[in-house]
Amino acid sequence: MRLVTYALEGPDGTVLRAGVLRGGSVVDIDGALAAAGLPARGGGEPGGSSQLIRIIAGGEQALDEVRESCDAAASAGREAPVVHSADAVRLVAPLPRPNSLRDYLVVEEHVRGCVAAGVLAAVPDEWYRIPAHYKGNVDEIYGPDDTVPWPAYTDRLDYELEVCAVIGARGRRIRASEADRHVVGYTLYNDWSARDIQSREMSIGIGPGIAKDFGSSIGPCIATPDEFDPRTSRLQARVDGEVWSTGTLGTMQFSFEEIVEWTSQEQTLQPGDLLGSGTVGKGCGVEIGRWIGQGSVVELEADGIGVLRNRVGRKGEGPTRVVDVDRTR
Amino acid sequence: MRLVTYALEGPDGTVLRAGVLRGGSVVDIDGALAAAGLPARGGGEPGGSSQLIRIIAGGEQALDEVRESCDAAASAGREAPVVHSADAVRLVAPLPRPNSLRDYLVVEEHVRGCVAAGVLAAVPDEWYRIPAHYKGNVDEIYGPDDTVPWPAYTDRLDYELEVCAVIGARGRRIRASEADRHVVGYTLYNDWSARDIQSREMSIGIGPGIAKDFGSSIGPCIATPDEFDPRTSRLQARVDGEVWSTGTLGTMQFSFEEIVEWTSQEQTLQPGDLLGSGTVGKGCGVEIGRWIGQGSVVELEADGIGVLRNRVGRKGEGPTRVVDVDRTR
Repeated sequence: MRLVTYALEGPDGTVLRAGVLRGGSVVDIDGALAAAGLPARGGGEPGGSSQLIRIIAGGEQALDEVRESCDAAASAGREAPVVHSADAVRLVAPLPRPNSLRDYLVVEEHVRGCVAAGVLAAVPDEWYRIPAHYKGNVDEIYGPDDTVPWPAYTDRLDYELEVCAVIGARGRRIRASEADRHVVGYTLYNDWSARDIQSREMSIGIGPGIAKDFGSSIGPCIATPDEFDPRTSRLQARVDGEVWSTGTLGTMQFSFEEIVEWTSQEQTLQPGDLLGSGTVGKGCGVEIGRWIGQGSVVELEADGIGVLRNRVGRKGEGPTRVVDVDRTR
Repeated sequence: MRLVTYALEGPDGTVLRAGVLRGGSVVDIDGALAAAGLPARGGGEPGGSSQLIRIIAGGEQALDEVRESCDAAASAGREAPVVHSADAVRLVAPLPRPNSLRDYLVVEEHVRGCVAAGVLAAVPDEWYRIPAHYKGNVDEIYGPDDTVPWPAYTDRLDYELEVCAVIGARGRRIRASEADRHVVGYTLYNDWSARDIQSREMSIGIGPGIAKDFGSSIGPCIATPDEFDPRTSRLQARVDGEVWSTGTLGTMQFSFEEIVEWTSQEQTLQPGDLLGSGTVGKGCGVEIGRWIGQGSVVELEADGIGVLRNRVGRKGEGPTRVVDVDRTR
């Protein structure tokens, strides 16, 4: 199942709604639940940026209800506002404002690539022992086809090809063996990075901060584990149509299940938390000695998730989103 | 004005409400606005953990209305549920779930203290040039009198005496000279740190993560700038009643106004964002060679803000909050 958030034009303006992408259709989740005689899980009308978070918070039972009711709505040939042609609606980031964004650094080929590129002095001993992370900025999330700003303070903007695990049901002290009850699925994640300011920030030993906080892209959907396997699925990054990076996450030093166990030891993971993999090997420009330019189009692709396409803007321009809706509600 | 969030017992259970602490009273903000014939700014009944965020989002105009209507309600001798005796209600963290938590590292005496203690090799050159930060965990916030958990993974729990500036009105590309329109006030911040795991995490070069994510304390109020001046106000930390740390923020390498300008260059600061100062000089145990123990009581105090008192738990115990209400709503 591919969970999405889409923009629906209505009499009171544009609203964000949670849906399921099924071939050429987007099925509205609360609409399909209602058609099946089940209570809304996303809060019903009128929608909002956190509708999908409320739905995935229901865990496995919620997912089962969503799957069955959306299948039924599509099979019954229902029409809008329950079933839309995918061409008739615009997808936004599946979680327009995630509850949190943690990014780990668990692919050795990437860490070694950073050493080779002179970004890191050496692979630290502790890297092999614990999954460290930093936190990103959930207030500057971009989705499919949005234009991500090129910060005025950088000449070295870079992409990063990553995957996030998405937390559904809340949990604390989760064992790795039980993590699958809490990971609802996976999405692509472009961890845009201003390399010049990043090296300055990281020389201070905390962060990174504004080197990444200007924008992160996620999407186009959250693919449930039957659609996307982080151990085997192929990942690719293209710049202006040319393949720059290919790989898999098969070489993670810590699996997503181990990351969930580690992180939840003394804190509660919440619905809508994103846990990033870190960059796949050779999954960014700095590792391969190439640099995107102002106006470049970067596409990340994964079997089972789809394509996340973003243009980067020009210095001094603000961001441009395909759908301009307040994401803080 | 001292802005607080307090717990009110009602027929449907405990709810969190935004108030103003005035001597021995807590004035309910939406109640006082209603009594003054003004529209609710916190969403009205029944309250919730983000009521104070909605109020401060209104910027200077909202603050003026709040001040005048709360003064009027107190002067008119109104009684509960508009004016409460401070003894009759319990304060929780002023923002039970802040929109975000960034922590900078801008007091040179602390950075030099960390070098002297062997935590840092040297003061990095870039430290003098840019205000780096990491992001904390807004889902594990503790308030006055809460018991903060002692993580099972640490033998070296430490306190950190800090102050946060609190963002009210949203803003992007804010000049330092205009930052006062966006900083609604200040609160005390205990950036609890598990030093043993912190040194392991930070050797990897990102974060810190679980070394701090198990809990942060803020409170007891958000003091507006007429009550608290970050350049001059005296700060103190006491452990089990004994003074361990004293200082001021007068020596900040970057002022809060400069931090606001730096951070908002290419991202929008949101209502309820917290910007931490970093630790004041000798404002934590590791700098003075002393360690708190399981069950210790740590009090942070600042002129104009008050006392933020927390006990730390014992290894293996979960957290214990004075008021047990879902903070995610």
